[in-house]
Amino acid sequence: MKPPKFEPSEEVLAGDTADIYFARTVEVLKREGLNPVATMEVFTHRAGIICGIEETKALLTRILPKDKREVWALAEGDTMEAKEVVLRFTAPYLSYGLYETAILGYLAHCSGWATAARECVEAAHGIPVISFGARHVHPAVAGVMDYSAVVGGCAGCSSIAGGKLAGIEAAGTMPHALILLMGDTVKATVAFDKHMPPEVPRISLVDTFKDEVEESLRVARALGKKLEGVRLDTPEERGRVTAELVKEVRAWLNLNGFKHIKIFVSGGVTPERIVYFRENGAPVDIFGVGSYISSAKPIDFKADIHEIEGKPISKRGRTPGITPNPRLKRIM
Amino acid sequence: MKPPKFEPSEEVLAGDTADIYFARTVEVLKREGLNPVATMEVFTHRAGIICGIEETKALLTRILPKDKREVWALAEGDTMEAKEVVLRFTAPYLSYGLYETAILGYLAHCSGWATAARECVEAAHGIPVISFGARHVHPAVAGVMDYSAVVGGCAGCSSIAGGKLAGIEAAGTMPHALILLMGDTVKATVAFDKHMPPEVPRISLVDTFKDEVEESLRVARALGKKLEGVRLDTPEERGRVTAELVKEVRAWLNLNGFKHIKIFVSGGVTPERIVYFRENGAPVDIFGVGSYISSAKPIDFKADIHEIEGKPISKRGRTPGITPNPRLKRIM
Amino acid sequence: MKPPKFEPSEEVLAGDTADIYFARTVEVLKREGLNPVATMEVFTHRAGIICGIEETKALLTRILPKDKREVWALAEGDTMEAKEVVLRFTAPYLSYGLYETAILGYLAHCSGWATAARECVEAAHGIPVISFGARHVHPAVAGVMDYSAVVGGCAGCSSIAGGKLAGIEAAGTMPHALILLMGDTVKATVAFDKHMPPEVPRISLVDTFKDEVEESLRVARALGKKLEGVRLDTPEERGRVTAELVKEVRAWLNLNGFKHIKIFVSGGVTPERIVYFRENGAPVDIFGVGSYISSAKPIDFKADIHEIEGKPISKRGRTPGITPNPRLKRIM
Amino acid sequence: MKPPKFEPSEEVLAGDTADIYFARTVEVLKREGLNPVATMEVFTHRAGIICGIEETKALLTRILPKDKREVWALAEGDTMEAKEVVLRFTAPYLSYGLYETAILGYLAHCSGWATAARECVEAAHGIPVISFGARHVHPAVAGVMDYSAVVGGCAGCSSIAGGKLAGIEAAGTMPHALILLMGDTVKATVAFDKHMPPEVPRISLVDTFKDEVEESLRVARALGKKLEGVRLDTPEERGRVTAELVKEVRAWLNLNGFKHIKIFVSGGVTPERIVYFRENGAPVDIFGVGSYISSAKPIDFKADIHEIEGKPISKRGRTPGITPNPRLKRIM
Amino acid sequence: MKPPKFEPSEEVLAGDTADIYFARTVEVLKREGLNPVATMEVFTHRAGIICGIEETKALLTRILPKDKREVWALAEGDTMEAKEVVLRFTAPYLSYGLYETAILGYLAHCSGWATAARECVEAAHGIPVISFGARHVHPAVAGVMDYSAVVGGCAGCSSIAGGKLAGIEAAGTMPHALILLMGDTVKATVAFDKHMPPEVPRISLVDTFKDEVEESLRVARALGKKLEGVRLDTPEERGRVTAELVKEVRAWLNLNGFKHIKIFVSGGVTPERIVYFRENGAPVDIFGVGSYISSAKPIDFKADIHEIEGKPISKRGRTPGITPNPRLKRIM
Amino acid sequence: MKPPKFEPSEEVLAGDTADIYFARTVEVLKREGLNPVATMEVFTHRAGIICGIEETKALLTRILPKDKREVWALAEGDTMEAKEVVLRFTAPYLSYGLYETAILGYLAHCSGWATAARECVEAAHGIPVISFGARHVHPAVAGVMDYSAVVGGCAGCSSIAGGKLAGIEAAGTMPHALILLMGDTVKATVAFDKHMPPEVPRISLVDTFKDEVEESLRVARALGKKLEGVRLDTPEERGRVTAELVKEVRAWLNLNGFKHIKIFVSGGVTPERIVYFRENGAPVDIFGVGSYISSAKPIDFKADIHEIEGKPISKRGRTPGITPNPRLKRIM
Repeated sequence: MKPPKFEPSEEVLAGDTADIYFARTVEVLKREGLNPVATMEVFTHRAGIICGIEETKALLTRILPKDKREVWALAEGDTMEAKEVVLRFTAPYLSYGLYETAILGYLAHCSGWATAARECVEAAHGIPVISFGARHVHPAVAGVMDYSAVVGGCAGCSSIAGGKLAGIEAAGTMPHALILLMGDTVKATVAFDKHMPPEVPRISLVDTFKDEVEESLRVARALGKKLEGVRLDTPEERGRVTAELVKEVRAWLNLNGFKHIKIFVSGGVTPERIVYFRENGAPVDIFGVGSYISSAKPIDFKADIHEIEGKPISKRGRTPGITPNPRLKRIM
Repeated sequence: MKPPKFEPSEEVLAGDTADIYFARTVEVLKREGLNPVATMEVFTHRAGIICGIEETKALLTRILPKDKREVWALAEGDTMEAKEVVLRFTAPYLSYGLYETAILGYLAHCSGWATAARECVEAAHGIPVISFGARHVHPAVAGVMDYSAVVGGCAGCSSIAGGKLAGIEAAGTMPHALILLMGDTVKATVAFDKHMPPEVPRISLVDTFKDEVEESLRVARALGKKLEGVRLDTPEERGRVTAELVKEVRAWLNLNGFKHIKIFVSGGVTPERIVYFRENGAPVDIFGVGSYISSAKPIDFKADIHEIEGKPISKRGRTPGITPNPRLKRIM
Repeated sequence: MKPPKFEPSEEVLAGDTADIYFARTVEVLKREGLNPVATMEVFTHRAGIICGIEETKALLTRILPKDKREVWALAEGDTMEAKEVVLRFTAPYLSYGLYETAILGYLAHCSGWATAARECVEAAHGIPVISFGARHVHPAVAGVMDYSAVVGGCAGCSSIAGGKLAGIEAAGTMPHALILLMGDTVKATVAFDKHMPPEVPRISLVDTFKDEVEESLRVARALGKKLEGVRLDTPEERGRVTAELVKEVRAWLNLNGFKHIKIFVSGGVTPERIVYFRENGAPVDIFGVGSYISSAKPIDFKADIHEIEGKPISKRGRTPGITPNPRLKRIM
Repeated sequence: MKPPKFEPSEEVLAGDTADIYFARTVEVLKREGLNPVATMEVFTHRAGIICGIEETKALLTRILPKDKREVWALAEGDTMEAKEVVLRFTAPYLSYGLYETAILGYLAHCSGWATAARECVEAAHGIPVISFGARHVHPAVAGVMDYSAVVGGCAGCSSIAGGKLAGIEAAGTMPHALILLMGDTVKATVAFDKHMPPEVPRISLVDTFKDEVEESLRVARALGKKLEGVRLDTPEERGRVTAELVKEVRAWLNLNGFKHIKIFVSGGVTPERIVYFRENGAPVDIFGVGSYISSAKPIDFKADIHEIEGKPISKRGRTPGITPNPRLKRIM
Repeated sequence: MKPPKFEPSEEVLAGDTADIYFARTVEVLKREGLNPVATMEVFTHRAGIICGIEETKALLTRILPKDKREVWALAEGDTMEAKEVVLRFTAPYLSYGLYETAILGYLAHCSGWATAARECVEAAHGIPVISFGARHVHPAVAGVMDYSAVVGGCAGCSSIAGGKLAGIEAAGTMPHALILLMGDTVKATVAFDKHMPPEVPRISLVDTFKDEVEESLRVARALGKKLEGVRLDTPEERGRVTAELVKEVRAWLNLNGFKHIKIFVSGGVTPERIVYFRENGAPVDIFGVGSYISSAKPIDFKADIHEIEGKPISKRGRTPGITPNPRLKRIM
Repeated sequence: MKPPKFEPSEEVLAGDTADIYFARTVEVLKREGLNPVATMEVFTHRAGIICGIEETKALLTRILPKDKREVWALAEGDTMEAKEVVLRFTAPYLSYGLYETAILGYLAHCSGWATAARECVEAAHGIPVISFGARHVHPAVAGVMDYSAVVGGCAGCSSIAGGKLAGIEAAGTMPHALILLMGDTVKATVAFDKHMPPEVPRISLVDTFKDEVEESLRVARALGKKLEGVRLDTPEERGRVTAELVKEVRAWLNLNGFKHIKIFVSGGVTPERIVYFRENGAPVDIFGVGSYISSAKPIDFKADIHEIEGKPISKRGRTPGITPNPRLKRIM
């Protein structure tokens, strides 16, 4: 995956998204005539996947003076250890003081999403996982959330914005709404097939009106070889998708000559559920994961000054001076 | 609090933040010449505080045809019951089909933040709670996160963008960076006092270099009556803020004639910690809450079609027809 | 309910079902010329519903000498306290020594079933409960198990033998086999209606081939007013019956004018599940309970000699002499 | 162990022990003129020991038409895996439809007992286990319960009927009643020795009136070499049998020259207790197990039609068609 | 109970039992010519019963200068709250600096014992509790441990030294050794009765050789009206004393006309066991408690200087100045 | 460590610390003219470190007749297994009957302390552990407690009496009192250095008034090379000592050229805390352990007669005769 071209927003550059005390700090220091070169280190207490580095880099490129900056970082998508320094930069404080909130925010939110995605991907042992949870986050971050999921290892994502950022085609099947509006699953699937360009995979959602097995066979008979898959999304009120249901659908499809049709499972999928499906031998071909990724808790990053004008320092609770980390690469 | 003037972003209006299958659904239906009037209902399984309604309303105003729409909703900040319908709208499907992802996203993320804020506020029994967690979220949502916290009952928030949306002045004290850069807490506090306009409250952060009691007395002696408060933010590595520490600081301040100085507590504050402080008699004057609010799990909302052209319908797992809810008010 | 006419089996009367050491004890005592009048008391450590008293009585009537016997007991279906004496009889030891195993067996097994039935009935708050678990027990006790369930409060039972013992008509709907063999639920239901006498209630099983809602509407349309109910028995592999499914079926039936059709729920029903259905507002009309009743653990009864020829005695661990219990009634 | 000659009872053959809906199904199908050849498969969700196959076979022999039947099964006493098919038969449905309840009942109850017995036997690591729990079950199944325990691995059983079915001599010691009636343990043991034929082992029960050690030495002195063992059955009210008590009795017996006398332990014995005795070095020679075996929960078997006239079929929740199982042997 | 006349030991007065750093502190201060009047406060984090105050008082009387001392304290045996100041004294520091270890030691150990005793006494609801645990503590504190138990509410104690301190006669029955050496419980009891003065109660220990019921009846028959009680002390290896055993002994004693004989229970008695006996209706007349009291964890007291020459002070973690406590009485 | 010269106290020799029933037993036996040679065995149910053997030996030397005694024991400080006999002695009963309470008391209390000390030492993996808990025990046992801790493996102890018994110099730093009275940590440390002989290590307590890091640097600068260490004893109210605090102090000391200064950690130290410090890489040089050792539960030892005049005997619950234990050494 090629890193996208991030651009910091006007609001960020203007300092509007900052905690107000940083604006005040910058003001006080300016009036005091103070602008020492200071080194900031960023770390977190939780191990995981680092994400948001690219967006941070785009911001630092804009704000740090070219001739007085030094930036060291892990790469987007690297694993990070608990307490490991993931980003270190040295520059005159006033060039970056206003942006601490934004930098931590990029890393916190994106790394939370990427880490959750990685947990799903690892649980899936090679079965592709698609990020499906854009509807759980504010649309202003829907794209960057899906991008983070792909950084974490997802094979695809459902939001158009996420696809653009990640440089891939967004993925999806069809919503219940289409079937409800067309009044029948077969009718909806046939219409979908008629109007969509050939590169869009035909995957029919088979739990809207009738039993999943019955619908699967109906759409299979209607589209034949053209049908790439069926999606099972049985709601919790109906006992959600079980390993046995997947096996049953598979058995009926095979019995009727539809071995080529894939089974896509969504609805409350988590790493535990993925393991459950695998351990119970359910022949799932693709997992769609929603809130486990998109509602993942942000990872709490902390930024601390460790050196001022070359002199080790720190607040209580931190160790003074540069924290060695050979895994960091200089990026600026 | 007067509701802010929200405007949907270009990206949302263009459908870019949507799940791609909605774009495809709209395409298929258009080509089939189908555009029935359909009623969508939105609900969630978790009780909480509804937020995001205003931003949703701003979007619906833009997209639903004025003469063919009916919108019913709870008000921003209302409590909502588990499984209660919080929003219902009726309009030709093609006018809104592309925006389901965005609408659910507004509600999910904002209600998650507002509900967490409310839990803190209720635990605090009248002691003001300030939202302090902008650094845990992507800057694109820092403002709307703080706005949601205020909707949930917070007395203030730290991000400038949040203050603007909520129509209040952003609140804050000073960061450790200022003190590290000035080299001493008293020096930093005096400089802050010198340069800040009078309406900015003087609250000194007293855990950077020295013991909290010693620093409190030093800054109190330096600023006297002008000092409004001290902030305790002892890091976990140093045992974080305890009820006894608050009492000890209070005792020494009082013993030295500084009864007017308030104590502001931050660092890992949650409803449980707030209850702990209250039950142990710690005289806290203000709580600063970070990740408990800003990292709150979004609330999973679901949108379902319940009526098409006046005919009750539903997918499996839902009850067909309009779900009665006398608490809904017609807003459009 | 009129107590049935029990008759001890030949095998019991011959002593074949006894533990062999009782046969040996009787032999030893006979050869020693010993046959004292001894009082036996029976109790258990678990509170519950006593059942098996009628069958015990039938045996005692046959074996105890009419002029030298005294029998005190609780009545069939009474509640019993932990450690309460539920049966006491006085007679020459040799008349009953061989039957201790059988008497305890009647009480243990039947009280276990009746107690479990009572738990379901109490959980159901007035909604009828039918015993449906004959298939979990050896056919030699299928009838007496269902009889015990009725003693415990069940409104009916499924085995023909149980119905006979309990003096009621056995109850049932139709098995999956009928539908599988007829190839379609509607066909099976129509045939059932055609051939069954009018007093047999028409209750269709609606989860064999298609979705429960769809099948319910299909059979309702086929039989109309003649259809008394539908039975939901969704297997665990398909998420078993949920409260929401019951509500959904009810809503669709009502929406189509079939308010008279009852909903019968079976499959893994336990007191906890019954409470779950009630607390979630599921409009269940009848519960069918299988293994919770029929696989209930027998209640461990103990029989001890407390008096020999009028002299208090007991083994270690028991209190010598008659244990007073005013609730006992003399029955012989 | 040679399989006993089972004969289905009249009640079973008459269909009286069936769930009434099977009688109705048979009636409906007959009137519809339907009698397809159908394949039934029986399986359970719990791993264990299969028992009841012999009794099932006896029934199938009587009811299935010789020229149109095919029966495959595991052997009595085989281990079975969770979800493994343990019995499969193909025949015209009307020949067996009425007997599904009975067949499942044989297997459920007997396999429950055999599986529990096996758990005890495995825990005992070679120390013989005797089934002692006839008094917890209805006498109509006392024999078949003990038979199942022997199938599960017990070295003996206490009921006469069980001994007959299992083709062994029933085993036992003496009840407390004999000692209470004779007034003294030594007197009772001497009388037992005097009157019993030589092949009956002399095992004295030593906890009725006096301390177990004292009684053991008294009966050892009275019978000397003729005494085969002592049985410890201390009731819970007296702290039940402990590992230390067994060791203490052994030490005193050895100290007095009675090394040949075995120690038999009963009373609340379970696999956990057996492990406890072994791990604490208690020299137990025989275990008597009561309710752990006889009150074991029946194992829930399910019977499903998987093929009709050679065509794969199944109800929802099952996989259509024959389930392959190479462990099955054709038995008819 | 009249407080005993405590005298500090030579070792304590010489400072030998002190932590060495107190000796060094006193030396340093002396050489510096410093001896300010300082106020020490003693408190603990656990609520309980304060004990050791009398012994502390005896020490303070010896060491504090009569004209320059002020001592405030709770009374021996008072309840104390968590964090409550239980002792406060003001005097020149050098007069008491060497004794902090000893003072905290008196209070810690004695309050631990008294608090545990109180828990037993409260659980017993009026049934006398005797402290029986001298064998678990070093003989140097056996007496003061038993004294503390009596302060906590025990009706008696077993050690002679404890009885002397508490001003009561030590209580006891007879050890297993006497019975083993005499070879028989009845013989031992008769000898005890023959040689002991009349004021010593005749309580026979009835679990050494034979069953408790049998021995109880044997000693009752041997001593008749002279027997005051029997003691049950069944070891854990024999299932320890159970509520049922107490009831059984009581029943047999009553049945034989020995209603006057009391039942004394010992062996692993704790508050939980006392509640168990009471709730199960066991007619216990006296409880003997050993390790629950004598092995109780000492209560951690802390001594802090809160005022020096009238000026509030404190170390970090404590509140400066006198802590108000109206429950304290001036005792010196 | 050379075993100290213990002498039994007058009170013990007079039998005052005995349970009164032993005095009565001796009296009864004397009057009966009975004084058989009896063998007593002592064991416990808990594994651990045996301590108190030396003090027991000192007592037995005084009381057992030289020509009629045989004593076998484990050595002071040996590990002991659960149920292992740790002491066995044979002598005329009247010579030792009165001292059973004292002997068990020595062993119980001392072994409890030694076992707890060993747990800390093992957790510390070679880092020295000092016993610091004299203030939690009655001063009459402060010395023997610290002696036991050294037997268990502690490198030192704080009480003067304990040091004497263990034959080592008592160890200590300085108390908070010294610093509070001198008004400043540096002043106190300088005075300490001025007045203490050179062999007393200079270890400054650095948490009284100011932040631990600040104080550490202040005292380091004041004493330079003469400062051996700093002690961290942060109270719970201030978050107690954390692994991070140790690291932080270490970093600042090193950064300022004070690598020779050791870090001593005290305050709530337990084996779990020691493991926590080690696992989190905290560079602790010495641990001071208080209540975990000094408040350890005494270990419950039991003494039983197993042989009288060469004849195996025992009370119920014990095995008659000598219990073989090849690890015992004859010591008298």
